[in-house]
Amino acid sequence: MSRLVQKFGGTSIADVARIKKAAEIAVEAAYNGHEVVTVVSAMGDTTDHLIELAEQVNGTPNPREMDMLLATGEQVSIALMSMAIQNLGYQSRSFTGAQAGIITEPNHGLAKIQKVQPDAVDASLARGEIAVIAGFQGITQNNELTTLGRGGSDTTAVALAAALSADRCDIYTDVKGIYTADPRLLSEAQRLPAISYEEMVELSSTGAQVLAATSVELAMDSNVPVRVRSTFEPGDDGTLITNRLVSPDYTVCSISCDMTQAAITIKSENARLDGISNLFTRLQELGIHTDMLMLLAHEDEPAQEVAFTVEQRALSRVQSIIESNGMALGNSRSSVDTDVARISVVGRRLTSRPEIIASVFEALQIGGIPVNMVATGDIRVSVVLPAKYARKAVRLIHSKFGLHEGCFIAH
Amino acid sequence: MSRLVQKFGGTSIADVARIKKAAEIAVEAAYNGHEVVTVVSAMGDTTDHLIELAEQVNGTPNPREMDMLLATGEQVSIALMSMAIQNLGYQSRSFTGAQAGIITEPNHGLAKIQKVQPDAVDASLARGEIAVIAGFQGITQNNELTTLGRGGSDTTAVALAAALSADRCDIYTDVKGIYTADPRLLSEAQRLPAISYEEMVELSSTGAQVLAATSVELAMDSNVPVRVRSTFEPGDDGTLITNRLVSPDYTVCSISCDMTQAAITIKSENARLDGISNLFTRLQELGIHTDMLMLLAHEDEPAQEVAFTVEQRALSRVQSIIESNGMALGNSRSSVDTDVARISVVGRRLTSRPEIIASVFEALQIGGIPVNMVATGDIRVSVVLPAKYARKAVRLIHSKFGLHEGCFIAH
Repeated sequence: MSRLVQKFGGTSIADVARIKKAAEIAVEAAYNGHEVVTVVSAMGDTTDHLIELAEQVNGTPNPREMDMLLATGEQVSIALMSMAIQNLGYQSRSFTGAQAGIITEPNHGLAKIQKVQPDAVDASLARGEIAVIAGFQGITQNNELTTLGRGGSDTTAVALAAALSADRCDIYTDVKGIYTADPRLLSEAQRLPAISYEEMVELSSTGAQVLAATSVELAMDSNVPVRVRSTFEPGDDGTLITNRLVSPDYTVCSISCDMTQAAITIKSENARLDGISNLFTRLQELGIHTDMLMLLAHEDEPAQEVAFTVEQRALSRVQSIIESNGMALGNSRSSVDTDVARISVVGRRLTSRPEIIASVFEALQIGGIPVNMVATGDIRVSVVLPAKYARKAVRLIHSKFGLHEGCFIAH
Repeated sequence: MSRLVQKFGGTSIADVARIKKAAEIAVEAAYNGHEVVTVVSAMGDTTDHLIELAEQVNGTPNPREMDMLLATGEQVSIALMSMAIQNLGYQSRSFTGAQAGIITEPNHGLAKIQKVQPDAVDASLARGEIAVIAGFQGITQNNELTTLGRGGSDTTAVALAAALSADRCDIYTDVKGIYTADPRLLSEAQRLPAISYEEMVELSSTGAQVLAATSVELAMDSNVPVRVRSTFEPGDDGTLITNRLVSPDYTVCSISCDMTQAAITIKSENARLDGISNLFTRLQELGIHTDMLMLLAHEDEPAQEVAFTVEQRALSRVQSIIESNGMALGNSRSSVDTDVARISVVGRRLTSRPEIIASVFEALQIGGIPVNMVATGDIRVSVVLPAKYARKAVRLIHSKFGLHEGCFIAH
């Protein structure tokens, strides 16, 4: 008997009709002989509504109390989901994060899972029940409720799949899988039947909204195959994320596009390196992720130019750090550009293939699209360019690699 | 330093503005030098809304899953209440029933509190925080969430007050206290400054909606003084429920009126007593409470007449029990009257005072009001009469005992 974890996100259980649909998917899997664990998020925009309520009560709500509040969203979902499964004549039992043994660090709002103690869930499966688990939440060793932050329910699902030695973790969502490019941007984008963990981490980090990078990393570390598939067309196979398909050749599988970045440039006449190191230490302490870092220096003069991107929502914090580092950075001027897109070509074994970069530049040149920044790695090549060219750039690069016919594999 | 438990019901925290008002009451008590524990219900009609959702998903929702669902209502309230208190600059911490150590039996939907382990709440008070506790809910020894049934938040408040050796438990509600009669029925009804536990239990059992009888019994057993007072006029003293004011004389304090009862009469030609005993054993097993029981038998013939009242919502179950006992009850006919009111005169030391019954009958006679059933006890005298006379009967009896001038005390 194989063991399956199914995760249903907020849009997949947004109302009673959709909850019933999700319950049917779970029960069908059970009738097909699987042991089934379902992990559910809060219904639709419940979480946003609760945050709004909190802000009406207190402009700066306490993170502990916020977790206490938000955890109710998933608890409503598990009870209703379990009732819906029982309504179909199947045995079911719901579990809060605490009851499911999701033990986390005490970092409210962004708690990391420390360990999973799935004994109660295991016992439920042994009794022949479908176990319904609240995603996004856990409990500390001190009995405090916590939430996991963005993408938390995916993380719960993958962590449970690992702890329960599940054969697969199915992420049911409102898209049909992972595509060669965002199908909302590009109609000829193709669904990928499969993709490697590494590429998926990179896609998630560079703009794909389907799955949080942290949950893909967790799946990779625990070697849990993950399938992304549509709640509304559960017959489709979606996209399998796994290690099993690794080929020795280099591949280009997908183009991601992220409009949420801001490009920052700092020019200095006499900046010292310790100033720059201070800046990045401080950014790291605050958990602000930077990308596209480049540094230009000249041996014969102290002048330096540093450029990088950060998420736009972190911009005000970044700017105040730059200002407070003003002295150490010397006589510097910084500029910010939020009107940019970061386009990433995601694949495998790209480092030693300069033809990838050449192809990207050729595609952009054909479109007369200027490039502000470039960064390359083994799994991706990213370019930052003016936002107004984003869609055109995705189309041209997608076409250059022939992705409308699926993944590009070099031979 | 005195220790105070405050309980705020659903209407007292129905929206953000009222939550802020309740938080002010709690903080004011804390600034006045009290250690403060607040117990809150679900906001407004949250519970009804959740029940509705559940019934859309499953016509006969599983009691365990129902508890999982309903427990979220109070959890939302504690988080928001705690945030509101923090917004006033006071330290606060919220506790689910489980975190507050409310340990119950596993009887879902109607769980009784087995014990309270208030160590975490005690520690919170010791840190100078206002502790905010989810009413109505608890946890079993097996880590299952439970709810306490109707009036459950009052029970939580009183049980915590007892376990924490609180000096008083204040029940904040949408009325100003306990009255000599329901002020919605009778404008000249007077608020009582104080009332004994026994009388309050009886008032709650016979129709007063303010406080559940079980929580008053718990207060009596643990000798916790309870004050019923208005959230909207917190300056008013409300009504104190206590043992301290017991006088040696008989008193009549309040007239209650209950329109939710049904009168049942069973006439039998040859019923045997074991049939009747079966009937009541079965009713007790199902937790169906009967009142006004009377039995008429004649020594020289087997004919018997049994009459009693039950809550109307239990009526269909009672009728099917009567039918299934058809044989044992002999050749019997039963009749049901739901168009009745039970009017109760509640006081102390009434048993040995036939003038009480005389006064009640005089009052009803003046109004030309027929009486169907009568029952007397030490704490109350109840009459069942046609519903259409209810308001008139309350007015006449209230006036007969001079209750518009407050409690009647015999000298």
